Amino acid sequence: MLTIGFDVGGTNVRGVVLRPGSTEPLAIRRARTRPDGDVLVETIVDVTNGLIDDIGEPVDAVGLGMAALMDSEGTLRYAPNIPGVVNYPLVPKVVERLGLPVVAENDATAATWAEAKYGAGIGHDHMAFVALGTGIGTGFVLDGKLHRGAHGYAGEAGHITIQRDGPQHITGASGPWEYFASGNGLGILARRWAAEGRVDALVERAGSVAAIRGEHVNELLNEGEPGIEALIARFARDVAVGMADLVYVLDPEIIVLGGGLVDLGECLRKNIEDSLAERILGAAYRPRVPVVTAKLGSYAGAIGSAALAAELVS
Amino acid sequence: MLTIGFDVGGTNVRGVVLRPGSTEPLAIRRARTRPDGDVLVETIVDVTNGLIDDIGEPVDAVGLGMAALMDSEGTLRYAPNIPGVVNYPLVPKVVERLGLPVVAENDATAATWAEAKYGAGIGHDHMAFVALGTGIGTGFVLDGKLHRGAHGYAGEAGHITIQRDGPQHITGASGPWEYFASGNGLGILARRWAAEGRVDALVERAGSVAAIRGEHVNELLNEGEPGIEALIARFARDVAVGMADLVYVLDPEIIVLGGGLVDLGECLRKNIEDSLAERILGAAYRPRVPVVTAKLGSYAGAIGSAALAAELVS
Repeated sequence: MLTIGFDVGGTNVRGVVLRPGSTEPLAIRRARTRPDGDVLVETIVDVTNGLIDDIGEPVDAVGLGMAALMDSEGTLRYAPNIPGVVNYPLVPKVVERLGLPVVAENDATAATWAEAKYGAGIGHDHMAFVALGTGIGTGFVLDGKLHRGAHGYAGEAGHITIQRDGPQHITGASGPWEYFASGNGLGILARRWAAEGRVDALVERAGSVAAIRGEHVNELLNEGEPGIEALIARFARDVAVGMADLVYVLDPEIIVLGGGLVDLGECLRKNIEDSLAERILGAAYRPRVPVVTAKLGSYAGAIGSAALAAELVS
Repeated sequence: MLTIGFDVGGTNVRGVVLRPGSTEPLAIRRARTRPDGDVLVETIVDVTNGLIDDIGEPVDAVGLGMAALMDSEGTLRYAPNIPGVVNYPLVPKVVERLGLPVVAENDATAATWAEAKYGAGIGHDHMAFVALGTGIGTGFVLDGKLHRGAHGYAGEAGHITIQRDGPQHITGASGPWEYFASGNGLGILARRWAAEGRVDALVERAGSVAAIRGEHVNELLNEGEPGIEALIARFARDVAVGMADLVYVLDPEIIVLGGGLVDLGECLRKNIEDSLAERILGAAYRPRVPVVTAKLGSYAGAIGSAALAAELVS
């Protein structure tokens, strides 16, 4: 059996062909995301046909990992980064064009499944996946199964409130986890510390306080610049606030840390794990929750989508 | 078949005998909770034997709903309101004394199951139960099953942080949901508003700002006192903050509102439901989550424990 998995973000559409049980794509294609439902379907069809050409074999099913609120009927409800595509019956349209079984999930949910089956979550029936990128994406495996929720909308934990009178996020909400604990959040914190004169090396590197971005933090951390570890530690505390909420609600065995910020490496991971352990009440009476780094990198969403497609037809 | 269900709180031990499928106890007994593991076992055994005497028939299993962190082995890890009982192998000890199958769960988890099977959650495979009492107790039914988590500790959402730099709660944590949105939280809010001169009727009724308690709020609300509805609306907003977090994480079909504060009636329920709908992002693209009042009242924990006991032997 062969399946195709997609990861459709605000900028790119990526497709991979996989044999079930493997995480090594037999072929990979990319295209630009266009903010129109019918054009998006066309792109998915083109990439699928291209991949089938590449491998010279038919495929059995297609999985779509969408940076969007996908309902359990396969309708794209809305996607903050793909404006213009709203309440669009994506799965029915792709099925109609391809004549293949198609499944769609939120991209973080698909990545969660990839890490659970083939990555850092192997062997754990209760896992939370937390991807720190521009925002925060999350997904949960509970009792060995991907948790989708009543309508398919579970795993939107980037929106949980950790500071109810806090600053307004781009979503309009006040003080969500994502405001503080995402890549954007790290940039905000770094610029604040820089403005307060606490990380002069960052200002020098970036040229100005306003120019500071995550990559400057990463560079200086790798160079061992004093002060940057303290910044990461402060940031990690906010990551741990939301993770503790997930622990209280779900009681996972393990938390898998993914997204672009894992490039900050062991310093970030360890500070998050320690902050989490400090926050959890009754820590003396419960096991410490390990925070481990995701293994599948930026293709996790596409790999998970391909795995979900394989389950659809097996 | 007959089973006994217990609800063991910091003050009282309550036991009921039930026939599966019924929520009408055939017998009820109460005793005082003593903060000692062996004495607690003795109390449970005495109440059980008393109930068997009352009905003149043997029972098939016993369920214990504990105001405690219970692990999946039946060990009482710790209980904030039953000091002195820590890491105590409660289920093995009760099994040894009774010679019957015994299951134990957190009390809110047991109440959740009662509401799901026999109460306000009937027909809903994805349900969140939120009990507003002295603190906040929660439990979740996901995909039709009680969610216990990796260690049996799921459903401790009263501890989730909604104001990370907020006031310190009795647990030591800063700004947890429970600080703001429990019965205690309502008292704190009411006294603050009273001190600011916003609810003079409350001060008159209680005698002083410091003497204001939840029951005064309830009395004046029932009397239609102006200003009290605004107080409830403000309180409901904080209840909705944590509920929105649960919606983002779990995507429930319905939220069942329980605990002593449901005595505040429709005013509280409606304000919570409206505030929740206002908070949820992308509300135009997803169904409104109904907030409905629990049906089984203060015996939900014991009824749920009896139901779990019945499942143990069926």
